[in-house]
Amino acid sequence: MSDAPEGPDEAASENPAAAPAEAPSAEASEAAAPSRSHGRIAVRPTRRPRDLMEETRVKNAWLARVLTLFPGMFPGPLGESLTGRALAEGLWALDRVDLREFGLGRHRAVDDTPAGGGAGMVLRADVVSAALDAAPTPGPVICLSPRGRPFDQAFAKALSEGPGATFLCGRFEGVDQRVIEARGMIEVSLGDFVMTGGEIAAMALIDATVRLIPRVLGNAESVEEESFSHGLLEAPHYTKPALWEGREIPEVLLSGHHARISQWRREEAERLTKERRPDLWRALRGE
Amino acid sequence: MSDAPEGPDEAASENPAAAPAEAPSAEASEAAAPSRSHGRIAVRPTRRPRDLMEETRVKNAWLARVLTLFPGMFPGPLGESLTGRALAEGLWALDRVDLREFGLGRHRAVDDTPAGGGAGMVLRADVVSAALDAAPTPGPVICLSPRGRPFDQAFAKALSEGPGATFLCGRFEGVDQRVIEARGMIEVSLGDFVMTGGEIAAMALIDATVRLIPRVLGNAESVEEESFSHGLLEAPHYTKPALWEGREIPEVLLSGHHARISQWRREEAERLTKERRPDLWRALRGE
Repeated sequence: MSDAPEGPDEAASENPAAAPAEAPSAEASEAAAPSRSHGRIAVRPTRRPRDLMEETRVKNAWLARVLTLFPGMFPGPLGESLTGRALAEGLWALDRVDLREFGLGRHRAVDDTPAGGGAGMVLRADVVSAALDAAPTPGPVICLSPRGRPFDQAFAKALSEGPGATFLCGRFEGVDQRVIEARGMIEVSLGDFVMTGGEIAAMALIDATVRLIPRVLGNAESVEEESFSHGLLEAPHYTKPALWEGREIPEVLLSGHHARISQWRREEAERLTKERRPDLWRALRGE
Repeated sequence: MSDAPEGPDEAASENPAAAPAEAPSAEASEAAAPSRSHGRIAVRPTRRPRDLMEETRVKNAWLARVLTLFPGMFPGPLGESLTGRALAEGLWALDRVDLREFGLGRHRAVDDTPAGGGAGMVLRADVVSAALDAAPTPGPVICLSPRGRPFDQAFAKALSEGPGATFLCGRFEGVDQRVIEARGMIEVSLGDFVMTGGEIAAMALIDATVRLIPRVLGNAESVEEESFSHGLLEAPHYTKPALWEGREIPEVLLSGHHARISQWRREEAERLTKERRPDLWRALRGE
């Protein structure tokens, strides 16, 4: 079994036995052993007990450190499919930091009421800083927040080329602004909507980033042609059967004429982008 | 224990015993029994074997049906915290449909190579339609795709006011365009980036939607004041201690003067929105 399969994406998942869909993620990750050595590193120095989920990993593998009140959510969906296989093979690593361990007092309080009143609770600066400062942070420290700059493909690409990133998953009403500023966090938003916490947003950022790490996707061409790689949405896709419910595949795609197919896809991509995302189209034309 | 706690959001998570952080989500959900009856409905008629994760649910509870090749990813992070408690209490329900069950032939193939050539694999129209048509779909059918319209808070609000939604999680290169059109799917994008599949995107949409369902959040005021509710980003948050690493909480927030606090928050929200998201600011002013 090769570490960098040449076949189509998700080739492994085509084999039902390789994708135990109903198994809890934790079991799935543990069962999937690395297929051969990549020069594994030894145990990392840490004051915390060794994480059960910690995998053998490639030296200098991309590291996602996640600060959360729900460490049990991770790797979750990231432990399956392509990202899960790459995690098991050590192409990236996950370090979960439980904010609760840095909580104050007998109840390990991590939050308090907002200064000035209002609903919800705010994560304390002293608790967050203690969790952050407990270990060197790989790459930028990202605070998931609807107030942040929108995440996009260029951001994912930049992250994937660095050593890793630290993700602070906010809960409650938010995070004390002072620790965001004092620790130079980048506030990043998944989009113009509000979630119960930053955990799923962090998963989305990690997924989008990890798939750009070399050898995670088997087929580099797929990354080159996909949406946003040229600032355009992708052309529509079709596959067998040629006729389905009276609907045919566009004739040009069955012509075998590569230049015409390529031109059709480019035209469709431009048409779709203009129709659906005039903002992207204007940005592409430098308007 | 009340079904609609009056306390701050996430009150339950403040009690470490109530949030078994390290337990797999599946176990956590099963352990959390509804605290009292809400007029539970009986077993729904279905041709599929009863889903192990299916919970007793409130009659007409908001229903998320998820079509995926990785049903084991769900509820995943949605099974913990606020969304997990609401799921256990039957305030919403999750119906996982395994696309593989509708696959063709001995290998239960769900995808094939793209017409016209190229990398990756495309989900077949006949497989997707069979999975969709097997049960009535609650609300709109949403195909998660970077080619879709961007998800936002207004979309989440509209979804939360309906009976539910069906989420088709694309994998591979994409989904055959004919089934998207023939079944009137709405293509929805989480943002301008590409993920390994639609599962984490579906989780983000479900999380953002479920928290708007009445009684899921304990404190309705929190929803009113948060980002995007007035088309603005939220003002910064602060909490104890009053002095941290030489940084003070803005004086006005400690003044106890509600009108001045309210005005300060409004001004900060406007300043942040202008600075960080001129696009939102222009949209708000109708420019």
